[in-house]
Amino acid sequence: MKLTPLADRVILKMVETEETTKGGIILTGSAKEKPSVAEVISVGPGGNVDGKDIVMTVKVGDKVITSQYAGTKVTLEDVEYVVVRQNDILAIVE
Amino acid sequence: MKLTPLADRVILKMVETEETTKGGIILTGSAKEKPSVAEVISVGPGGNVDGKDIVMTVKVGDKVITSQYAGTKVTLEDVEYVVVRQNDILAIVE
Amino acid sequence: MKLTPLADRVILKMVETEETTKGGIILTGSAKEKPSVAEVISVGPGGNVDGKDIVMTVKVGDKVITSQYAGTKVTLEDVEYVVVRQNDILAIVE
Amino acid sequence: MKLTPLADRVILKMVETEETTKGGIILTGSAKEKPSVAEVISVGPGGNVDGKDIVMTVKVGDKVITSQYAGTKVTLEDVEYVVVRQNDILAIVE
Amino acid sequence: MKLTPLADRVILKMVETEETTKGGIILTGSAKEKPSVAEVISVGPGGNVDGKDIVMTVKVGDKVITSQYAGTKVTLEDVEYVVVRQNDILAIVE
Amino acid sequence: MKLTPLADRVILKMVETEETTKGGIILTGSAKEKPSVAEVISVGPGGNVDGKDIVMTVKVGDKVITSQYAGTKVTLEDVEYVVVRQNDILAIVE
Amino acid sequence: MKLTPLADRVILKMVETEETTKGGIILTGSAKEKPSVAEVISVGPGGNVDGKDIVMTVKVGDKVITSQYAGTKVTLEDVEYVVVRQNDILAIVE
Repeated sequence: MKLTPLADRVILKMVETEETTKGGIILTGSAKEKPSVAEVISVGPGGNVDGKDIVMTVKVGDKVITSQYAGTKVTLEDVEYVVVRQNDILAIVE
Repeated sequence: MKLTPLADRVILKMVETEETTKGGIILTGSAKEKPSVAEVISVGPGGNVDGKDIVMTVKVGDKVITSQYAGTKVTLEDVEYVVVRQNDILAIVE
Repeated sequence: MKLTPLADRVILKMVETEETTKGGIILTGSAKEKPSVAEVISVGPGGNVDGKDIVMTVKVGDKVITSQYAGTKVTLEDVEYVVVRQNDILAIVE
Repeated sequence: MKLTPLADRVILKMVETEETTKGGIILTGSAKEKPSVAEVISVGPGGNVDGKDIVMTVKVGDKVITSQYAGTKVTLEDVEYVVVRQNDILAIVE
Repeated sequence: MKLTPLADRVILKMVETEETTKGGIILTGSAKEKPSVAEVISVGPGGNVDGKDIVMTVKVGDKVITSQYAGTKVTLEDVEYVVVRQNDILAIVE
Repeated sequence: MKLTPLADRVILKMVETEETTKGGIILTGSAKEKPSVAEVISVGPGGNVDGKDIVMTVKVGDKVITSQYAGTKVTLEDVEYVVVRQNDILAIVE
Repeated sequence: MKLTPLADRVILKMVETEETTKGGIILTGSAKEKPSVAEVISVGPGGNVDGKDIVMTVKVGDKVITSQYAGTKVTLEDVEYVVVRQNDILAIVE
């Protein structure tokens, strides 16, 4: 079973908190926007989104920082995913 | 009797909760956006929607994840449908 | 006497609740958007609406589902009408 | 003395409540939008309005239904007028 | 000393209340928008305003009706002016 | 040290209150928008701003009226500046 | 490890408060927007951002003034960064 995102949406798999802090990343944020690290699992096609032409720039496998409150959580076969819009992704961690 | 959605609207039939968990999908979401799985029953024509050109990408028969609070419920001949805008659909489950 | 809607507005005549349930349709909705069945009586010309080009797709005689809270009620010669924007119409019932 | 509306504005003269009910029109509305019948006295030129190209479709002498809360009341030489934007006019009564 | 408005702004000089009622104009308005009569003193160049192309249609010397709450009051050499955007002007009084 | 504004931003230096009233200008405003006189110190390049093409029309040395609540105060080497967007400038005082 | 910002986002490293005041800059702001000085560490590619074409004008190494409440804080290998949109940057300090 797999999730195929529509439009400018991206499926993310959250990176475990242990793994995150192990690599030396400590994430803090304002009350409005708490960041978290996630891996890109699947990327929507972009193109015509609400009448605007959206180009997708993230790729499967990218580690990204996004807002913890953005998106919708989905648990599929015991793995938790988050569906966000590409615009909710702030940066790629390399 | 049948429902023909206008513009960028899509008619969904909610997949039973039993069926959903049977396939191993457990859905959780933030207070703002609770996802649920639904089958696409009918797809609007897209095209000129509020002055913007919308391309419809979901197809009849697609299993989709959408927000439980999105759309309007309609019960027709004992079957409950939900009318949503395509933009409220997050991903296709395959 | 007759009502001619402007722009993207549509004149609807609500279908009686008896008639509605007789055909097997039971309408339920969220607190935010309660749907109801109505017949299209008159359709605005569309075209230039607030600087956007709107194409009218509903036709006189269509039975439509719309939001009960959308539009303005007008009683003309003892018949109650509702004036809505086409965008408030969710689907056509056939 | 006369009022010349700017842009997409229209000068209306409210039709007396007596006259309104005499013709068999009883107007009711939701708490949000109370309709009323008015005669078009003067029509703005349309054209470039806030960067959008607006075409004026109402004509002087049209009886229109608009929202009672829309617009600004102006009393000129003992006659009360209402200045509305064309978009606040719902339909023409014929 | 003089005030030169930028973009789509217009400098108005409020017409005295005495003068206003002398000409037979009594202005009333909703709580949201109280109209008042003013003379146009200076008109901005229009053109590129916030990325939109605005054409100025009011002229110096026009008597206009605007919203009493719109704009910013400026007292220059004992004369009170109001700076409004052209879009806040409802109609010209002739 | 100097401040170079980005995009459609303008660096202003507030004109002293003494100086302001000396020239016969008394500024009053609504609770929402309190005007004040300032000198333009530096002007952003305009051009592509949030996807819109903005033309800068104020020049260094212009005395302008702006909203006291607009912008961000910055004190650099004991001089207080205010960074505003050009659109927050109402008029030029000459 | 490094952070690569997406779209119109910019990675900033806050300049120490000591260093800031040493150079004679004292920053004050309204309750809504508190400015702070930061160094640009990495700049997103700009281009197609939410359907608009954004040109990036800040460069790595620029000292910039931005709003303290804008953006998301990320601590990577003991260094705190802030991810902002270019539009949240007010001016360059030279």
